[in-house]
Amino acid sequence: MNPETTWAAQAAANRKAVGAQKPLVHNITNYVVMNFTANILLAAGAAPVMAHAENEVEEMVAFAKALVLNIGTLDDAWIAAMLKAGRKASELGVPVILDPVGAGATTLRTEAARRILGEVRVSLVRGNASEILALSGAEARTRGVDSADTVEAAAARAGALARDLGVPVAITGPVDCVTDGRRVLRVANGHPLMGCVTGTGCGATAIIGAFAGVDADPVSAAATGLAYYGLAGEVAADGAAGPGSFMIRFLDALHALTPEELEQGVRIQEG
Amino acid sequence: MNPETTWAAQAAANRKAVGAQKPLVHNITNYVVMNFTANILLAAGAAPVMAHAENEVEEMVAFAKALVLNIGTLDDAWIAAMLKAGRKASELGVPVILDPVGAGATTLRTEAARRILGEVRVSLVRGNASEILALSGAEARTRGVDSADTVEAAAARAGALARDLGVPVAITGPVDCVTDGRRVLRVANGHPLMGCVTGTGCGATAIIGAFAGVDADPVSAAATGLAYYGLAGEVAADGAAGPGSFMIRFLDALHALTPEELEQGVRIQEG
Amino acid sequence: MNPETTWAAQAAANRKAVGAQKPLVHNITNYVVMNFTANILLAAGAAPVMAHAENEVEEMVAFAKALVLNIGTLDDAWIAAMLKAGRKASELGVPVILDPVGAGATTLRTEAARRILGEVRVSLVRGNASEILALSGAEARTRGVDSADTVEAAAARAGALARDLGVPVAITGPVDCVTDGRRVLRVANGHPLMGCVTGTGCGATAIIGAFAGVDADPVSAAATGLAYYGLAGEVAADGAAGPGSFMIRFLDALHALTPEELEQGVRIQEG
Repeated sequence: MNPETTWAAQAAANRKAVGAQKPLVHNITNYVVMNFTANILLAAGAAPVMAHAENEVEEMVAFAKALVLNIGTLDDAWIAAMLKAGRKASELGVPVILDPVGAGATTLRTEAARRILGEVRVSLVRGNASEILALSGAEARTRGVDSADTVEAAAARAGALARDLGVPVAITGPVDCVTDGRRVLRVANGHPLMGCVTGTGCGATAIIGAFAGVDADPVSAAATGLAYYGLAGEVAADGAAGPGSFMIRFLDALHALTPEELEQGVRIQEG
Repeated sequence: MNPETTWAAQAAANRKAVGAQKPLVHNITNYVVMNFTANILLAAGAAPVMAHAENEVEEMVAFAKALVLNIGTLDDAWIAAMLKAGRKASELGVPVILDPVGAGATTLRTEAARRILGEVRVSLVRGNASEILALSGAEARTRGVDSADTVEAAAARAGALARDLGVPVAITGPVDCVTDGRRVLRVANGHPLMGCVTGTGCGATAIIGAFAGVDADPVSAAATGLAYYGLAGEVAADGAAGPGSFMIRFLDALHALTPEELEQGVRIQEG
Repeated sequence: MNPETTWAAQAAANRKAVGAQKPLVHNITNYVVMNFTANILLAAGAAPVMAHAENEVEEMVAFAKALVLNIGTLDDAWIAAMLKAGRKASELGVPVILDPVGAGATTLRTEAARRILGEVRVSLVRGNASEILALSGAEARTRGVDSADTVEAAAARAGALARDLGVPVAITGPVDCVTDGRRVLRVANGHPLMGCVTGTGCGATAIIGAFAGVDADPVSAAATGLAYYGLAGEVAADGAAGPGSFMIRFLDALHALTPEELEQGVRIQEG
């Protein structure tokens, strides 16, 4: 089999496993996207839970198959809870997926992301180009929480970042890039309407969490999760009248997409 | 009239009263479902308000016809606000409906639910089977915020729990069970797609709040509210392409369902 | 040109400018509407960001073209953040739009709104009739967060309020009223279904923020923003089956509405 066929089969297998195992994904995420994230995970067949109190996150993460840390609406108490949950997850071998929303925009966010990367055994970071550039120490043009940089610009730095941190990186955009500093995968699934709905990036991170709950290789979990997510976006866009109907059709598509359809539609390339 | 006819008439009367009186429902609820809960209450004709600051909850609850306490994304400050609002509601005779989201999953949640039950005159508890089992002191298999137990298993304990606490209990699932330890009502309305959308359980609790705002008997408010809610789910599922379109059609159905249609569709049985 | 034609042209120009300039709107808003607000702004072509931590709001607002302060789910820490962000915005000349959700319902909210008006150079206040009456010191019949007063009752006080504060006021309802105490504009666009979805008032404030990001005259920004918003509501209502489908069609309509269509549909009158 050529590598692309292998990735298609892996995507289908992961999609099937999420539906069968219904991995519990513990999210400490931002207020804006909590509802949409939970609905995305449910539509995919996973089991979301949101819990952020310092005095319960360790207990909650112990049930989870993945922990998603998202710094989108941050304050000091939430950072403390993320660190506590993250350290417990590290200890238990629960994969931790970090979404550094707005890194580069404010010092609080950039430093929170770096601190999590320093104190928690993160399995993968998923961000937009500007966020990844900011984490790599490069000049980023984060505009609030939106990227003003290209995936390719960030991809050029992502390999070194992944090697330095020992943490694979996924950059999402028109074509996503996933790398651990050695392998480089590009995922061409997706649709521009995804950028017109808030929380589609955060939802991608949560789906990577669900896939990481059934696939021990974070690079594979990320690439196949992003392909599934992007293909659902393509299906949803077909017939959508705008961002509102797209958002609803997207949840329907995440739910309906079979492993077989995914295997046909995956566009993952290595190198 | 046979009892089933009586319950159908009561459901229709309550639905009508909610639309006419537009009861103000004060919610102290979790971040994930705040928006959906407000939209559910508005669609039903009730008036939602969310307020959680310790220094305003007593003033706010004084306007309300019901108070809904939901422990879904808890921390210590929110517990304090719930207790304060709950005690004020008890004092004023405002019905309090408790949703013990995730009781049994973490100590914080189980203890918060018990503390509210101890310090507040709760009118009714609405939970899934695992949450109700956890409150009854039985071994529960809460999985994050999802139930891994059957309604029947929880129903077997719910009568004793209701008598011990002096608080009626509603367990939701494929067939809901409402009991005060004396009467037992079963509500067969509903649809499996409700489990694919986050916050449908929390929304059921809020609807019980709205019905409790117009019906002084909490068992009757819960059973008729759940029948209305479940019937809207049945209507919404017919033609839905997945959980996204279901969610939207569900709000439409809650809004459109007339007292007459409800009277025809109610499936409440005693015993 | 008669004044109505002028306003239609201004609305079209502002709509076009929002799409072209994609103004970053920094929102410190309530939990209930964060997601819907972000989606409304994105659908309009603006760039939303939510950030509330005291130790990042000054940095974030420095990037913004407008700051929206919404007191819908308030506590003391959020008030402090709003004041800090608001003072920085005042210093930088970033327009600040205030939404006094529930002013008049509780002391905390009324005082928070007054304190913001006292300490921040607010560009415009957008509220419902009861909220504006409460701020004017009149007896208001706020019911939770809903108005029980008429726009006309509030409009009678809004001119004096605007002159006293030196801050223009927009009152939304069946026909909106915008005044700086000298000019009075009435906006007749809108649809009753907007009242059946939570956060449509908050979303109106956010859209005024986006328009204020491209139009230096807050009265003009408010009237044209409300006309655009209301016209999208009219388009969305045509064919909606209820509040759920309306909400989705509303996002689609905000996205699809062209400057030319807006120019045709605007109903703004002076005097």
